Amino acid sequence: MVNYEHQLDRTFAALVDPTRRAILARLEREDGASVSELAKPFAIKLPAVMKHLDVLGEAGLITRSKTGRTVTVRLTPEPMRQAMSWLARYERFWSASLDRLAAYAEAKEAEAKKEGR
Amino acid sequence: MVNYEHQLDRTFAALVDPTRRAILARLEREDGASVSELAKPFAIKLPAVMKHLDVLGEAGLITRSKTGRTVTVRLTPEPMRQAMSWLARYERFWSASLDRLAAYAEAKEAEAKKEGR
Repeated sequence: MVNYEHQLDRTFAALVDPTRRAILARLEREDGASVSELAKPFAIKLPAVMKHLDVLGEAGLITRSKTGRTVTVRLTPEPMRQAMSWLARYERFWSASLDRLAAYAEAKEAEAKKEGR
Repeated sequence: MVNYEHQLDRTFAALVDPTRRAILARLEREDGASVSELAKPFAIKLPAVMKHLDVLGEAGLITRSKTGRTVTVRLTPEPMRQAMSWLARYERFWSASLDRLAAYAEAKEAEAKKEGR
């Protein structure tokens, strides 16, 4: 439980900064990017980008692998899935409509099976 | 866009602290609680709880209303819904299966309508 809470602390802290969120959003679109590619769109200097990558790495949101001189950064989505699960409890209305949709799909599936389609 | 990013900054910053998360979780279960009720389960003093409530209030996650001497605290889930939407993009596999479910439900609904049921 302590580890779970501690991971949530680190995940949410990593997500507070818009530059870090932009880096994560880019890594969601591209499967791996080099540090210099990641740094390009930002008005901040490379060392500042590296610091953001350190925060993301320590929170377990990215992995970095080195091939020759190139460091490739990849997304690790699991902590964000956990953070999303934490937030999901507040989505009462949204979950209610999702539950209805799932129930509807299941009922229709059972019906279709019964009719042998 | 700036306001959207700024709200995400404040929401994630408010969620970093486990005491604040515990307060939000309690407000999800109970529709409104007084400040002293909220403070009870914590080992920290009332002024510390009040500070946490200030952070939650400034982030727009709670509202406080005063009746006589009692301040009632209530949840405002909208910013968390927004934070969850931001996180949802990383849920590729989960969204893929939700998309399939929604497409299935829609197809079945269209089918049912065509058959005049």
